Amino acid sequence: MKKDKNKKVKLVVVGSVALDTIETPIEKKEEILGGSASFACAAASRFVKTGIIGIVGSDFPKKYLDLLESFNVDLKGLEKINGKTFRWSGTYDKDMNNRTTLCTALNVFADFKPKVPDEYKTAPYIFLANIEPRLQLMVLDQMKRKPKFVAADTMELWIKTTNSDLMNLIKKIDLLFINDSEARHITGNFSLLQAAKILLEIGPRFVVIKKGEHGSLLFSKNSIFIIPAFPTENVLDPTGAGDSFAGAFMGYIARAGRINTATMRKAMLFGTVAASYTVEKFSLDGLCDATLEKLKKRARILRNMIRV
Amino acid sequence: MKKDKNKKVKLVVVGSVALDTIETPIEKKEEILGGSASFACAAASRFVKTGIIGIVGSDFPKKYLDLLESFNVDLKGLEKINGKTFRWSGTYDKDMNNRTTLCTALNVFADFKPKVPDEYKTAPYIFLANIEPRLQLMVLDQMKRKPKFVAADTMELWIKTTNSDLMNLIKKIDLLFINDSEARHITGNFSLLQAAKILLEIGPRFVVIKKGEHGSLLFSKNSIFIIPAFPTENVLDPTGAGDSFAGAFMGYIARAGRINTATMRKAMLFGTVAASYTVEKFSLDGLCDATLEKLKKRARILRNMIRV
Repeated sequence: MKKDKNKKVKLVVVGSVALDTIETPIEKKEEILGGSASFACAAASRFVKTGIIGIVGSDFPKKYLDLLESFNVDLKGLEKINGKTFRWSGTYDKDMNNRTTLCTALNVFADFKPKVPDEYKTAPYIFLANIEPRLQLMVLDQMKRKPKFVAADTMELWIKTTNSDLMNLIKKIDLLFINDSEARHITGNFSLLQAAKILLEIGPRFVVIKKGEHGSLLFSKNSIFIIPAFPTENVLDPTGAGDSFAGAFMGYIARAGRINTATMRKAMLFGTVAASYTVEKFSLDGLCDATLEKLKKRARILRNMIRV
Repeated sequence: MKKDKNKKVKLVVVGSVALDTIETPIEKKEEILGGSASFACAAASRFVKTGIIGIVGSDFPKKYLDLLESFNVDLKGLEKINGKTFRWSGTYDKDMNNRTTLCTALNVFADFKPKVPDEYKTAPYIFLANIEPRLQLMVLDQMKRKPKFVAADTMELWIKTTNSDLMNLIKKIDLLFINDSEARHITGNFSLLQAAKILLEIGPRFVVIKKGEHGSLLFSKNSIFIIPAFPTENVLDPTGAGDSFAGAFMGYIARAGRINTATMRKAMLFGTVAASYTVEKFSLDGLCDATLEKLKKRARILRNMIRV
């Protein structure tokens, strides 16, 4: 890993870093590493040097910093301040597709203002993982050079509470990741095709609609790409699947260094495969298994499953 | 069409022929042509000469016989007796994925015993569309020569009420079409991968699990193929989508005349595309639009949407 230490950060990710308490029908885990930026950075780091922008409290376990470093994530942008780390807890029902949030404690996140480290300010690829749109915009505003490609993820909560910030953000990005129910909600349109058209008209060149276990769709003005989820036998915890998907997607295109149909479709393939590793274990444990070699191998298997 | 009149029937389909009354959030239609065999035969006939085995009452409108004939379906096996035709009525909820049966009146179907016309008894391809497993078995028993390939579809009701007949049937077929919730129910296994494995162990070489708008999966002992649904903007009525899928699938392989991975995957592609035409209109109206040329064109479009 040493040799990568001094590589320049190509992809910058802002998002949450959290301590999750998760109950599934099979098992319960307390205070495990979670948050949109943790998953996205771990997945992206398999492809490219990735820097994280986020915040943790003084209670944040050192072992989790070590874990992120073991993925080779650049931690310069991870602020540590006095106070408690952001915490989330939730339960999943039997089919693992619906989750209920039991508790969200913002803690140090409540007053978080992302600061982009100087050496990230010219990074070509930016992923604004799921946090408040206002904070996502703050990161874009600090960039010194217009990035080559900016993608953002969002969630139901921001559609409901900060819709105008979110709309402002969507106008400024190249790609929006959104799940099916969110796409329906934000556009007021039940058809995903029509929802995607409306979102594309707002500004981004690409829209990725995530459907969980049913795969995902990539829309641009004149093409659609559809990919199923990788069929995994044992789904242990779906938390972070979408973040891992987006992280691997962005890592793949940052590594490829070009935006065209073939690259975007391969990025969808690798996003899908990274998500499949994530759901097989809790926290980042699944991604720990997912070396670039293993991701490539599973990508070949999936590609063969969809070839006709 | 005349030239096909004397062609030998290659594919025999047994199933229901019904008069459906359907209410969707958009529109209500009364006494339109429905039934598993109607949809399956219409779709299959685009590929190969198909014979229908079923029963209708004396009230069955001549226009619907003409409609089936316009698809070039061979009607020798369609019995007509005194009494009322089978009727089904149901409603769909807003997302068109869940339907509620309002009324099922078996009528002439109550005492139906399928009779296979002599010239169908050596047909190489058989599709046992969704009817009571006992009746599906009766068709198999009347064949003079072991067919090259037999597929069957089923539904929740038969899993609940005639499970041993159904199990007996599944042992005797080459391919089982089943939807996701039925596969889970019949195997008692939530994972579709594990459900498919269990079903394959019962006997068939292939299992196709249909997931409606989320596409379908083809399982064999050593391979999986996954295909998304064709993204149609306007779903008017999902009735018959699964029957059309299976009909086109079987029509495709009967036309190809060989069972291998490439053929099976293309059959999945054409099944998907036929289903997409069906859901765009009521009754067989969507399939009326779907000439072989149009099916091929949409298959090319879908293939391009899933290529990576």
